[in-house]
Amino acid sequence: MSENKMEQLLEQMTIEEKVGQLVQLATPFFRGATDRGEITGPMVNMNIDEEDIKNTGSVLGASGAKETNNIQKIHMEESRLGIPLLFMSDIIHGFRTIFPVPLAIGCSFDTDLAEKSAAIAAKEAAVSGVHVTFAPMVDLVRDPRWGRVMESTGEDTYLNSEFARAFVRGFQGDLDNEKYKVASCVKHFAAYGAPEGGRDYNTVDMSEWMLRENYLPAYKAALDEGCEMVMTAFNILNGIPSTGNEPLMRGILRDEWGFDGVMISDWGAVKELIPHGVAEDQKQAAELALKAGVDIEMMTSCYVNHVEELIEEGTLEENLLDEAVLRILKLKEKLGLFENPYRFADEVEEADFILSDDHRQASRELASKSIVLLKNDDLLPLSADKKVALVGPFADSTDILGPWSWGGRAKDTITVDTALKTHFSDDNLLVANGTRIEDSTDKQLEEALQAADQADVVVLALGEDSNMSGEAGCRADIRLPEVQLNLLKKVRALGKPVVAVLFNGRPLDLREVTENADAVVEAWYPGTEGGHAVADILLGNVNPSAKLAMSMPYSVGQVPVYYNSYSTGRPQNAPDAQDRYVSQYLDIPNEPLFPFGYGLSYSQFEYSDLEISSETITAADRLSVSVIVTNTGDLTGEEVVQLYIRDHVGQVVRPMKELKAFERISLGAGESQTVTFTITEEQLRYYHANMEHKSDAGEFTVFVGTNSEDVLAKSFRLEK
Amino acid sequence: MSENKMEQLLEQMTIEEKVGQLVQLATPFFRGATDRGEITGPMVNMNIDEEDIKNTGSVLGASGAKETNNIQKIHMEESRLGIPLLFMSDIIHGFRTIFPVPLAIGCSFDTDLAEKSAAIAAKEAAVSGVHVTFAPMVDLVRDPRWGRVMESTGEDTYLNSEFARAFVRGFQGDLDNEKYKVASCVKHFAAYGAPEGGRDYNTVDMSEWMLRENYLPAYKAALDEGCEMVMTAFNILNGIPSTGNEPLMRGILRDEWGFDGVMISDWGAVKELIPHGVAEDQKQAAELALKAGVDIEMMTSCYVNHVEELIEEGTLEENLLDEAVLRILKLKEKLGLFENPYRFADEVEEADFILSDDHRQASRELASKSIVLLKNDDLLPLSADKKVALVGPFADSTDILGPWSWGGRAKDTITVDTALKTHFSDDNLLVANGTRIEDSTDKQLEEALQAADQADVVVLALGEDSNMSGEAGCRADIRLPEVQLNLLKKVRALGKPVVAVLFNGRPLDLREVTENADAVVEAWYPGTEGGHAVADILLGNVNPSAKLAMSMPYSVGQVPVYYNSYSTGRPQNAPDAQDRYVSQYLDIPNEPLFPFGYGLSYSQFEYSDLEISSETITAADRLSVSVIVTNTGDLTGEEVVQLYIRDHVGQVVRPMKELKAFERISLGAGESQTVTFTITEEQLRYYHANMEHKSDAGEFTVFVGTNSEDVLAKSFRLEK
Repeated sequence: MSENKMEQLLEQMTIEEKVGQLVQLATPFFRGATDRGEITGPMVNMNIDEEDIKNTGSVLGASGAKETNNIQKIHMEESRLGIPLLFMSDIIHGFRTIFPVPLAIGCSFDTDLAEKSAAIAAKEAAVSGVHVTFAPMVDLVRDPRWGRVMESTGEDTYLNSEFARAFVRGFQGDLDNEKYKVASCVKHFAAYGAPEGGRDYNTVDMSEWMLRENYLPAYKAALDEGCEMVMTAFNILNGIPSTGNEPLMRGILRDEWGFDGVMISDWGAVKELIPHGVAEDQKQAAELALKAGVDIEMMTSCYVNHVEELIEEGTLEENLLDEAVLRILKLKEKLGLFENPYRFADEVEEADFILSDDHRQASRELASKSIVLLKNDDLLPLSADKKVALVGPFADSTDILGPWSWGGRAKDTITVDTALKTHFSDDNLLVANGTRIEDSTDKQLEEALQAADQADVVVLALGEDSNMSGEAGCRADIRLPEVQLNLLKKVRALGKPVVAVLFNGRPLDLREVTENADAVVEAWYPGTEGGHAVADILLGNVNPSAKLAMSMPYSVGQVPVYYNSYSTGRPQNAPDAQDRYVSQYLDIPNEPLFPFGYGLSYSQFEYSDLEISSETITAADRLSVSVIVTNTGDLTGEEVVQLYIRDHVGQVVRPMKELKAFERISLGAGESQTVTFTITEEQLRYYHANMEHKSDAGEFTVFVGTNSEDVLAKSFRLEK
Repeated sequence: MSENKMEQLLEQMTIEEKVGQLVQLATPFFRGATDRGEITGPMVNMNIDEEDIKNTGSVLGASGAKETNNIQKIHMEESRLGIPLLFMSDIIHGFRTIFPVPLAIGCSFDTDLAEKSAAIAAKEAAVSGVHVTFAPMVDLVRDPRWGRVMESTGEDTYLNSEFARAFVRGFQGDLDNEKYKVASCVKHFAAYGAPEGGRDYNTVDMSEWMLRENYLPAYKAALDEGCEMVMTAFNILNGIPSTGNEPLMRGILRDEWGFDGVMISDWGAVKELIPHGVAEDQKQAAELALKAGVDIEMMTSCYVNHVEELIEEGTLEENLLDEAVLRILKLKEKLGLFENPYRFADEVEEADFILSDDHRQASRELASKSIVLLKNDDLLPLSADKKVALVGPFADSTDILGPWSWGGRAKDTITVDTALKTHFSDDNLLVANGTRIEDSTDKQLEEALQAADQADVVVLALGEDSNMSGEAGCRADIRLPEVQLNLLKKVRALGKPVVAVLFNGRPLDLREVTENADAVVEAWYPGTEGGHAVADILLGNVNPSAKLAMSMPYSVGQVPVYYNSYSTGRPQNAPDAQDRYVSQYLDIPNEPLFPFGYGLSYSQFEYSDLEISSETITAADRLSVSVIVTNTGDLTGEEVVQLYIRDHVGQVVRPMKELKAFERISLGAGESQTVTFTITEEQLRYYHANMEHKSDAGEFTVFVGTNSEDVLAKSFRLEK
């Protein structure tokens, strides 16, 4: 059907039918759902009747071809105008084949593999009947206390934007024509990743300049890539809850950026305008959200119970409703649902595609490229003829899929011990937990220490359980649980070489870990093939190449710490700096424990001969920046070459460094390669105080190196 | 002289002479200074010659009638037009008689005594030749990591505003007519108290709404009270360093608020526009600062070396210079310096007034009203017939004046042991340090434990040395130093009753202290009479009555935590709240350890019969709110009765509680008093999204109680 057809359809709809399209309910509401009738808790108070459900436009969280087809079939039989349901789900880092958490994917600096992971997730989801995924989450995060940090790709605007584009390409592909694609819904608009105190859903406040310069670009990048939908954020932004924030959504998103796709609230966020204190009741909440630009209300019933009344009394104009409905109908039409309401949902293909060897292999590859080697005092890679004690709560844990992996299954998950058993003889691999996540028994501890005592090397698999991060999973203490640190110290006291392998969803204060281990491997939550990926790294079958997408803080007292901060007027290391009156802490360094972009390899990479094609450029020029990277180690390895710039004088302050480009290269032992980047005037633009986005003439430094701190530098001037 | 005379004077001045008025140099630059010639470090690079010094308009940090008179005399002899020098100094919480640090004064909730403290400081300073003090500092602070938190009166906009007014009244009085007054310079404009990560001088970023609603009112209050001067802040605000921030200073301060007094940079802040990255060199720094509205440049030489050139080349208009000079001349004229350049500087009165018994008594009174009793399990007040061990690094320390007390002297300071010796017999008072601030010896520790073991009660005097807070005194770990906590635990293990008395310049994480002590007394830095004030409290000669002006956080991982935060959409304790998906930390409470407004007494106060005069008000009405407070204890005591409001639905979010009034009352044992407050529509106004400051019709709750959490409540409606 054409757009015209959708408009004709709209004309035939009653107000109830229109409002129904704006409603999204969870699966248990629908006939045909396997768990129909299990509506409990707040759902029973929604004042929704069977007629409302019949008119409902979209379904949250259903998956599985059988179930989605059942629900759709019943719905199509009952729908007066034959408008199909849209099925939306949180497919965040894989559907059944779980990939590493997005924060880990960010550390891969590999947007091709990220795109592939999204394409595989889309394929598995599409044959299971999902039409839209609530991903990517592209919220910039600078606070590791926030549990949802695992769902972002970290602290950098540019990196987040590149991954935003990659994920959208992977999910959507050529949505109109390509098979097994799902629509993508970028979230959470806007700045959800900056809650005060790192406490989820908490107050967000920043200047418009900060918002535009750092927080908005990744959402915009997703939309530029064609992302079909946008989800609102739970937080307030400058006093107004995002879900009722007209300047943000109508002003910036729709009017300024021209976004004409569907906007959906996050779960319950329309009704939450009441506890936020900007709406007196559900009726006013409905009014504020619809006026602000929210098309679909997820899982609360302010729209269904009040929009008609608001229109009748003249508070809302019906064309606001019509616009919202038309956007939803057009998305359904674009997804082909009017031609085939079942789309790709197919039980046979489900069985074929899901968790296929290819999918598993892609997950393993991405996981091994997401694992960051933080420390290695000549211990890794391990040789399989060594006797290894694998100790710690993650030694045999299937809890390595991470939050937002509801489609993944423990039985499909490769644990570390399972993977290591494929490499080590029984005699050479001793396994003992030693502790659970937050407690232990004397017996457990004793077993672990005995195993460690018999081994040549101890691999400690430590971390946070997956409930300790993710949505609402915020922690004020970002160290490993005390009991695990004690296990580490006790093992250390045995005098054996120690490798710490970490499973966690946030940057942690790792001081005690780095002090007590010879090697530290940050595995994050590596997904279905996690055990294999960890084994690949430990044994050197894959040479580590990931780089931190977020600074590892020195301690929680340092938060927020991020590489692209601004110079103060009294920087710590200036030539004329006083001892005391500089911007510093008395008790800890200003720098994080490990900086953004940091990650070791079993190879060593030497950077030399940084050259720029000119010492001045104009807006018409392209500055060529080249560097020679040499693998001086004994193994083939991959390296993420990073380019940063600094704009020395701005009309507003400018970051001390900004990532502007990166390239992943592979070098054999002893091999050299010249890596060349191009800088254009466009990359030098920034938001001025009046919100103009432009560059200024003046001096810049370009830095190239292996992480954000260890760089070569050259200066150039932009002339205007 | 009249204003007209000043204009005539201006007309006679050369550009060099004009620019000179914009220069402020430290005392060592001037002939007649006792330490003349000791110009070292960065000062030698300022490119300032004797002619520049001759033209200089003001002197930083000189005091003592002899010195200031010497300098002024030489200057007047050499000044072509007879323009006297202005002497400015940091007189923050006392000149020679040191009062408690401002954060402690905030806890007194006693603006009369605060005013008196400022008047005494002004008197001592004035007779020593000081004309202007760089106080009050009214920066709102929500982060205890920031060292300069001790210089503020805490986290509340209203409380800060009330103290801002009180300090200005105290310093300035009727400046034109009253003797022994100094001009007041409110600082730091603007929002210096909100540095990222609690790291001094660091990035500040917030929305204009946040700035106007919470941060600006206290500066405005000081100006409404007639404050003569304003000092810029070191920080950027939304990308622009405050010292070069034209929208902030010309826009809000001068144009919108009509401030026509002198604006001064903070120390070196003009030149710091260079490391901030908004000025290429000192010339551009001068241009930006003068255009933005900075009249006097403190301690750097951008103006003196470049303003003339900027005017000559047409970059700056001379009338900008003239306006600045005229403001400075008018201030000198207002202070009477043209009639008597020596003003109140007088060696005889210096000897008479400084550290007089009256001044000491006022300091002691304010200190005892600033000391917050945080915990008391039936231990305090102490009886002087008990045998007491006074243990800890602050047992005999004179480091209880706090930062910004350069005029105070150790020899004049009453230590805790000195004060307790006036109450206890030698046999009944054992004194031992046990530790230094951050270390100890076995011998020290042993002595302390022996003393403790012999005593009936142990008083532990613990804390941070005064360098651990104050400017650039930031800490990421806000617990007491480990060695002192260990001392506390060792003493605790002896099984004796333990009182912890704390000396510190910031809210601390006191969990381990409250767990290991029966009574906890927060003495802050109490000033010259600190020992007596602490003894007054410990022995019950003064019944504690102070209330926290800033929340005591549960841990640094909770920062920022403050009482007047906004509701999230998913508050923790809502009736329908889920277990997980609410705004919370998994490992600690949302609430601070002790809330804003909290503080115990040796009396108990019962609140009852909260009444409001009407359930609805209009803009014309005054709502009367009354409560009966009864002292149910055995001792006469003072109580700070606190009134908060909540606006339930706003156009933007509104704080869960906002302090709107407080009253300090005194009640005998068993006595009751009805306390009555008045609420008007004006108090219900707030900044809307469009920056309009107005109230909305709707429901409000008024809370009255003994702290921000423990309150009675009544609801009313504002009708329009």
